Amino acid sequence: MSYTIDQLLKKVDAQMNSLGIPDEPKELYQPVEYCLKNGGKRVRPLMAVISCDMFGGNIDKVMPLAVGLEVFHNFTLMHDDIMDQAPMRRGKPAVHKKWNINTAILSGDVMFALAYQCMLKAPQKLLKRVLEAFNETVIQVCEGQQYDMNFETADNVTEADYINMIRLKTAVLPANSLKIGAIVAGAPENEILNSYLFGESFGLAFQLKDDWLDVFGDEEVFGKKTGGDIIANKKTWLYIKAFELANDNQQRKLKDAFSDRMHHPEEKINTVKNIYLQLGLSELAVEQMEKYYQKAFDYLEKIKIPEESKSNLTQLINKLIERKS
Amino acid sequence: MSYTIDQLLKKVDAQMNSLGIPDEPKELYQPVEYCLKNGGKRVRPLMAVISCDMFGGNIDKVMPLAVGLEVFHNFTLMHDDIMDQAPMRRGKPAVHKKWNINTAILSGDVMFALAYQCMLKAPQKLLKRVLEAFNETVIQVCEGQQYDMNFETADNVTEADYINMIRLKTAVLPANSLKIGAIVAGAPENEILNSYLFGESFGLAFQLKDDWLDVFGDEEVFGKKTGGDIIANKKTWLYIKAFELANDNQQRKLKDAFSDRMHHPEEKINTVKNIYLQLGLSELAVEQMEKYYQKAFDYLEKIKIPEESKSNLTQLINKLIERKS
Repeated sequence: MSYTIDQLLKKVDAQMNSLGIPDEPKELYQPVEYCLKNGGKRVRPLMAVISCDMFGGNIDKVMPLAVGLEVFHNFTLMHDDIMDQAPMRRGKPAVHKKWNINTAILSGDVMFALAYQCMLKAPQKLLKRVLEAFNETVIQVCEGQQYDMNFETADNVTEADYINMIRLKTAVLPANSLKIGAIVAGAPENEILNSYLFGESFGLAFQLKDDWLDVFGDEEVFGKKTGGDIIANKKTWLYIKAFELANDNQQRKLKDAFSDRMHHPEEKINTVKNIYLQLGLSELAVEQMEKYYQKAFDYLEKIKIPEESKSNLTQLINKLIERKS
Repeated sequence: MSYTIDQLLKKVDAQMNSLGIPDEPKELYQPVEYCLKNGGKRVRPLMAVISCDMFGGNIDKVMPLAVGLEVFHNFTLMHDDIMDQAPMRRGKPAVHKKWNINTAILSGDVMFALAYQCMLKAPQKLLKRVLEAFNETVIQVCEGQQYDMNFETADNVTEADYINMIRLKTAVLPANSLKIGAIVAGAPENEILNSYLFGESFGLAFQLKDDWLDVFGDEEVFGKKTGGDIIANKKTWLYIKAFELANDNQQRKLKDAFSDRMHHPEEKINTVKNIYLQLGLSELAVEQMEKYYQKAFDYLEKIKIPEESKSNLTQLINKLIERKS
């Protein structure tokens, strides 16, 4: 391990800034710039470079791929925000709101291609393998988004369905980011697999935390109103578990709240949140999250490199799991 | 040259059918099936296989790439139809009409990834080169679509702007299809370039023919109403040339027709078409088309392979240029 997290983050940011997005046509590329420069935690590129670094790889070789993973992630946000009719992203208007839907579709498409352009910079000998891992991820993320949309109108979503959906939509990307970093470093096959499985379990914990924050986050720190998922009738883990545990009266109240999109928003949020609290769901969700978090660390344990080489990854994951926003 | 066009088309169709589109989630993949099985002339995959074959290559090696080019082309149609609010595609409802916009966005995205999945089957040694050619095409097609949309509200589109737009939006894909076929066949560099330039000029002629058919096509044979571009205020070659050649009175009439989206459609089409006819634009457009067509054949001339090896390509191009729909 040759770098601190801060050093790696600076390198990722520098690489992001030297992406070389063309100027013209500006109607196509300005939204791309806007989207990529609108912050974000750079979790996925960091994971790729940390993974490469911890296995003793040359991080310069993984850097363009790390950026490609981030560009791809931002592309999915641009298209998802259209589909989810989400007006805001990271405190600013989403591209389809600041411009329009056509712009968000086409600028998203070109971002997708720009992501592949980055991935094409993989070392020649690893190109096929890296691209196959990347492309499989892309397909799985699309499938995850489809299941997420299906669930909005489905009645019988189980916990297993939900976990599979967030695995596809959220967890395979960090998993493959770690995997790609390990591949570039030339790590042994079993370590590449362990990195992937670590990332997958972490991704599930990460999404459960996201769901939790959306309901129980401190609005001051969270930076936006809580209850967004409740308003959008999103089938989160909390929602699914609530229906499983609720008594008849609570079930009726929940159904009432979720069937009525025109319900006064504050009232709907309060009703649902109160039932979640009565059912002890805040604690149960945290428990569930910790289960996946622990599972992730079990995989990290299996990786046979010096403990101090793992400290960047541990540090990043701890920060993300303890995050308040 | 080892195959007839019909044999090659059959092989392309067989490969298209064995693409192995997953079943689930069906909401994601059914629109993909619908789109890919909704006919089309398979021009781009045919060009890739014909090119590979005429340079003495093994067409089995180019087959998955040919399919990738067709899948990509169909992806662009799916997203373009949303952006252009086009209700129909090849005589059937467009995906965003048969399903909805979200479906057309996400199924389009996954088709994009499926296209890359095909391109990843390029022979290992050629992988980087093929993918770079493909990825550049993708970016150019997005840029072309952006210019096309920009032109809808721009006042000062020149003939050169228009030609550049259709080069990006339409011509680079056949050009690169031929190029990829030539690369896989191991053709010499100058022949790879000549193939590309042939395809580019042909692509321009092809699009000019498209514009011409949209106004002057025989509706019975064309299979749909003419005048669609006029109604959509599309800045075609005819439109741009008309403004260049019109007298004051004709210019006023044209401006009138194109400024009023609420104009009675038939009346708008007739007004515009009459001015086009008065200005002799039907003949001028055909002349222009033939200029590019001739340019294409000049490049084909340069390719140093036996004349009989070129006959599939000549045959395909002639059929496309003489097409009535």
